Amino acid sequence: MTNASTNMRLKLPIVCFILQIILIILFGVLVQYDHEVDAKEWHKHNHSDYDNDFYYRYPSFQDVHVMIFVGFGFLMTFLQRYGFSSVGFNFLIAAFAIQWATLMQGFFHGMHGGKIHIGVESMINADFCTGSVLISFGAVLGKTSPIQLLVMALFEVILFAVNEFILLSVLGAKDAGGSMTIHTFGAYFGLIVARVLYRPTLDKSKHRNSSVYHSDLFAMIGTIYLWMFWPSFNSAVTAHGDDQHRTALNTYYSLAACTLATYGMSALTAHDGKLDMVHIQNAALAGGVAAGTAGEMMLTPFGSMIVGFLAGIISVLGFKFLSPILEEKLKIQDTCGVHNLHGMPGILGAIVGAVTAAVASSDTYGEGMTDVFPDVANGDVDASFQGVRQAISLAVTLGMALLGGLLVGFIMKLPVFGAPPDTLCYEDSIYWEVPGAEEGHEDQLTTVVSPETEKLNG
Amino acid sequence: MTNASTNMRLKLPIVCFILQIILIILFGVLVQYDHEVDAKEWHKHNHSDYDNDFYYRYPSFQDVHVMIFVGFGFLMTFLQRYGFSSVGFNFLIAAFAIQWATLMQGFFHGMHGGKIHIGVESMINADFCTGSVLISFGAVLGKTSPIQLLVMALFEVILFAVNEFILLSVLGAKDAGGSMTIHTFGAYFGLIVARVLYRPTLDKSKHRNSSVYHSDLFAMIGTIYLWMFWPSFNSAVTAHGDDQHRTALNTYYSLAACTLATYGMSALTAHDGKLDMVHIQNAALAGGVAAGTAGEMMLTPFGSMIVGFLAGIISVLGFKFLSPILEEKLKIQDTCGVHNLHGMPGILGAIVGAVTAAVASSDTYGEGMTDVFPDVANGDVDASFQGVRQAISLAVTLGMALLGGLLVGFIMKLPVFGAPPDTLCYEDSIYWEVPGAEEGHEDQLTTVVSPETEKLNG
Amino acid sequence: MTNASTNMRLKLPIVCFILQIILIILFGVLVQYDHEVDAKEWHKHNHSDYDNDFYYRYPSFQDVHVMIFVGFGFLMTFLQRYGFSSVGFNFLIAAFAIQWATLMQGFFHGMHGGKIHIGVESMINADFCTGSVLISFGAVLGKTSPIQLLVMALFEVILFAVNEFILLSVLGAKDAGGSMTIHTFGAYFGLIVARVLYRPTLDKSKHRNSSVYHSDLFAMIGTIYLWMFWPSFNSAVTAHGDDQHRTALNTYYSLAACTLATYGMSALTAHDGKLDMVHIQNAALAGGVAAGTAGEMMLTPFGSMIVGFLAGIISVLGFKFLSPILEEKLKIQDTCGVHNLHGMPGILGAIVGAVTAAVASSDTYGEGMTDVFPDVANGDVDASFQGVRQAISLAVTLGMALLGGLLVGFIMKLPVFGAPPDTLCYEDSIYWEVPGAEEGHEDQLTTVVSPETEKLNG
Repeated sequence: MTNASTNMRLKLPIVCFILQIILIILFGVLVQYDHEVDAKEWHKHNHSDYDNDFYYRYPSFQDVHVMIFVGFGFLMTFLQRYGFSSVGFNFLIAAFAIQWATLMQGFFHGMHGGKIHIGVESMINADFCTGSVLISFGAVLGKTSPIQLLVMALFEVILFAVNEFILLSVLGAKDAGGSMTIHTFGAYFGLIVARVLYRPTLDKSKHRNSSVYHSDLFAMIGTIYLWMFWPSFNSAVTAHGDDQHRTALNTYYSLAACTLATYGMSALTAHDGKLDMVHIQNAALAGGVAAGTAGEMMLTPFGSMIVGFLAGIISVLGFKFLSPILEEKLKIQDTCGVHNLHGMPGILGAIVGAVTAAVASSDTYGEGMTDVFPDVANGDVDASFQGVRQAISLAVTLGMALLGGLLVGFIMKLPVFGAPPDTLCYEDSIYWEVPGAEEGHEDQLTTVVSPETEKLNG
Repeated sequence: MTNASTNMRLKLPIVCFILQIILIILFGVLVQYDHEVDAKEWHKHNHSDYDNDFYYRYPSFQDVHVMIFVGFGFLMTFLQRYGFSSVGFNFLIAAFAIQWATLMQGFFHGMHGGKIHIGVESMINADFCTGSVLISFGAVLGKTSPIQLLVMALFEVILFAVNEFILLSVLGAKDAGGSMTIHTFGAYFGLIVARVLYRPTLDKSKHRNSSVYHSDLFAMIGTIYLWMFWPSFNSAVTAHGDDQHRTALNTYYSLAACTLATYGMSALTAHDGKLDMVHIQNAALAGGVAAGTAGEMMLTPFGSMIVGFLAGIISVLGFKFLSPILEEKLKIQDTCGVHNLHGMPGILGAIVGAVTAAVASSDTYGEGMTDVFPDVANGDVDASFQGVRQAISLAVTLGMALLGGLLVGFIMKLPVFGAPPDTLCYEDSIYWEVPGAEEGHEDQLTTVVSPETEKLNG
Repeated sequence: MTNASTNMRLKLPIVCFILQIILIILFGVLVQYDHEVDAKEWHKHNHSDYDNDFYYRYPSFQDVHVMIFVGFGFLMTFLQRYGFSSVGFNFLIAAFAIQWATLMQGFFHGMHGGKIHIGVESMINADFCTGSVLISFGAVLGKTSPIQLLVMALFEVILFAVNEFILLSVLGAKDAGGSMTIHTFGAYFGLIVARVLYRPTLDKSKHRNSSVYHSDLFAMIGTIYLWMFWPSFNSAVTAHGDDQHRTALNTYYSLAACTLATYGMSALTAHDGKLDMVHIQNAALAGGVAAGTAGEMMLTPFGSMIVGFLAGIISVLGFKFLSPILEEKLKIQDTCGVHNLHGMPGILGAIVGAVTAAVASSDTYGEGMTDVFPDVANGDVDASFQGVRQAISLAVTLGMALLGGLLVGFIMKLPVFGAPPDTLCYEDSIYWEVPGAEEGHEDQLTTVVSPETEKLNG
């Protein structure tokens, strides 16, 4: 009866079609190719085709794209009965968010003569914004309908774009890899949404809130892709030349150090010394998050490795000790532990960025200062004030995420959006046609999920 | 007894070795490095090593390569007992086809002084041609022996090269992403082959012609990789500069719009509003197919999104309503639904390409017209006639595919090629050593497949 | 009792933390950005940001990175109960080895004024060295603790760097794709370690030393990624321009020919003509290994295909006939068959490289000789002597690998490192928290692994 609201037969098509048609209309009215994409504009100028920015951004874009669709999508397949939704809803909301983010980010910093100009750099930025939404998705994984997720994406993209505009354009902060704009924002936004959507009797679905052997292997596909391509993520939109090169290298070493810390901490915090897949799948990535702001700076490999090492330790400790507290005391049921992978490491990354900015000197950066800290190079501000800007940016991000998440969480709570009942969380079959698990076992599986499923179908 | 023909002990080695030895001899006689690959030729000229086309094509090549081997391979693993064959036969026929396509395509448009010159661009084109063969493979998946597939590849590559030559060189059509040359050709060729190979009692294997939970997740690996890298596919061989940039961007937005349409339509066409993995795995990709011809043109993001949106709708409707008709009325058993993913969206893409070409103006393209429509830029033809050429190209492609598929289908039907019996379609164990499904269940599984297997082994 | 040594609660954290802290200190003291990474240094010179080597190496780096972490990691998931360890230990030791290799390789050929200079090329080389360690891992897969593997990596990286220094800097050999430095070294090093760690009663774990259906599909993810990106691997550190282009192309055709040979041989050597996944997963890659030395030379596509074809044949024959002999007569239990994939094809590649070098002429190479054989171009040596150098390099590599493996094998044998007992080889649950296989089957699975597991936990 109440479950009728989870039937997506009309709701999902209506929402998808309305959103897509609005997007198409807005693109028709507002969006143009930028001068590197437009046939006429590009050929107006005298340059080699090899100078097109496509060749210096697109490989990074594709790596980021893999992180968004394979990385995030498969990382969340660890749940035993939620693989279709993890990959599939990830796919849906990302496909929506990249379009919507193009408009929102373009509105705030891509307008030229009343038109939004797009190209490979705006594609990367749209993917970045989408990453933030997917982080929030991780906090509510298994407890939301696809419509709730689209609603979340709709509002979160707007708030992301506003926050990004304040940080990068108003405050003049640097955050190429998005420790603040992407990770901190996405994590705390999602955590507050999870708080608002708190389910006191969620343990009715507890038996499904765990992995099985092969689901953990699918999740490792996500983990490894995120890990490998994080250097591309952090360096995708920095200035060209040494900046991209340095950011990729710093991230590479931060992640490597983080991985050893993660394995050590995972064994140390287990009563029998056995490694925990949850830690390996998530905490080993914290080094990429924590290098998101300072990665483009002269952090040095030495500094990068320290940052990664700390991020790994913090992240495992978070999974072990903080997540249970969040759930019991603060009533935040953080399915994927985004607080440990994106929240705390994001804050760590913001702080490292602020400190690294504050100690920047022309002695270290030389002429390269112009790319990394243009305002410092111009003499508009001194380095320590750049550090202050970075710190303020962290505070603004936390504030935006918390308030935004609160607001959007309440919107998402509207019954019409079709959230699953407490008895059918972490369960694909409520929104998907689900086949059996292995040949010869179909009956058995159907039995496992059937009592509620039948009611739904009835 | 009849089943003895499916024993590959001698047949497969003979076919593989003969084909490979012929390829080696033909390469020895006919093939040379082009001037960007040859040590002597490259160093004869005065240019920077950074100007080598390798740097401006190879990243796209690798993305295409991933689509061919991982994308197509894993997309077809959705069947519960056909994962080895899906990935494994895909691997085999692709490895053959890329070599054979190098020769055939080189023969038609890469000859220099009696030699075929090869480099990164010919590698991409060979992968493209292979993609067409793999599309046809999708139509007959589960019902053919590896030798039949090699025979199909042998002939299809020749016909692909002829058709491509007629379209691009004789008719002067544009089709960078292959809506016509790759998708329409591969789909209708495969569908006619499937018609010729029609099996009236295929329902003896019906219980295996479906997915299980984890096989659908493996298939999603294929889907997501195809989706992510389609912008690289469509832009891989366009002119450099704005053209590659624009094609990638158009495809990106076409796919995003297609995905929302797919999710909406999938829920709408299900009686209980539940999403169907078959739609998500396939129809969400139709936006890439449909942007294959017009992607390099000034389609605008607005136009791209409309095309993708329509492609998604058409594709889901095809799966829901047209595929059953094809099977029952036309006796075409299209295992992967290639008509819905490649056939109809390919035709849509060809039509969109013809219309977009017909309305091209120097007002829109400026000097960039030379890259996109050289004959129009030269004044040899006007834009509307370029549109006519595109439309004729579609007709030629359909004709070539239908006649070619008919011919090749009858060749493939020869009993000596070892097609599986109707009782053992969609089943790995006829051509592969197959282990159990999960530890502790080996006995059970063996029982499931053993009756026929034992006869075969006996 | 003895099993207490396999408890990693304290050992693994201590080892990980000590190693990582030493790495951080050594990086702090010794490592600097090179002039393409450092903000100040890069901007001292007058060049375009687009000339930064990042843009001409980083896409290759990322492909190599995928091979190391996804390729090697998933290739080894074929075992039914060792997927966590395969991907997870691969991840751990690779994360350690890339840092340690940066130092060791930098010490031997990256020192500038007492500092090790690093950038994208050193990152590729560090990944290469790591690949060698992972090959050795394949030989001992399932029979070692993570600490033993870290100990192996610690010493093997040093010996790899010494051997690489002797070959490339002292002997003046060419080995861009590492047929000798990476594959031959890694394989024979690992085989000797496996010999030293010989377990006479390993058949107590025999029932776990095999695949299940889905584990073979996971392994195919590794195979296909290795296969697709091998052209990038072999060309990643060659000279720019025609050299990278040619190496990638040669490897592409070598792999394609190898694949057909593999399928043919796999069917031919099976008593019932059925394909064996072990062959497909491994032997189809031998063409990449065998093109590792000569790939950058003017091998021609014709030559490359012959090399690949032979490599595939040798490799399948090795799996079929040589591996059982190695185990029974030489007491080498080579879990992944690295002798067949890396050992013999590596030697073949070294020989092909020596012969191809010996016949190099300025007639063929023109001015390009300077990039491929600088000493021949300079007139310091003639081509035939370059061939001799290559042959000596193979002998040196074999000697270093055998002696090094012997030494390191005995170190790894120390009981304190916590090797698994013979009854618990090829089993994740000894070092990992392992969930059930499928919902509803947890109890059953726990029963399967519980007798020993309980003792361990007790």
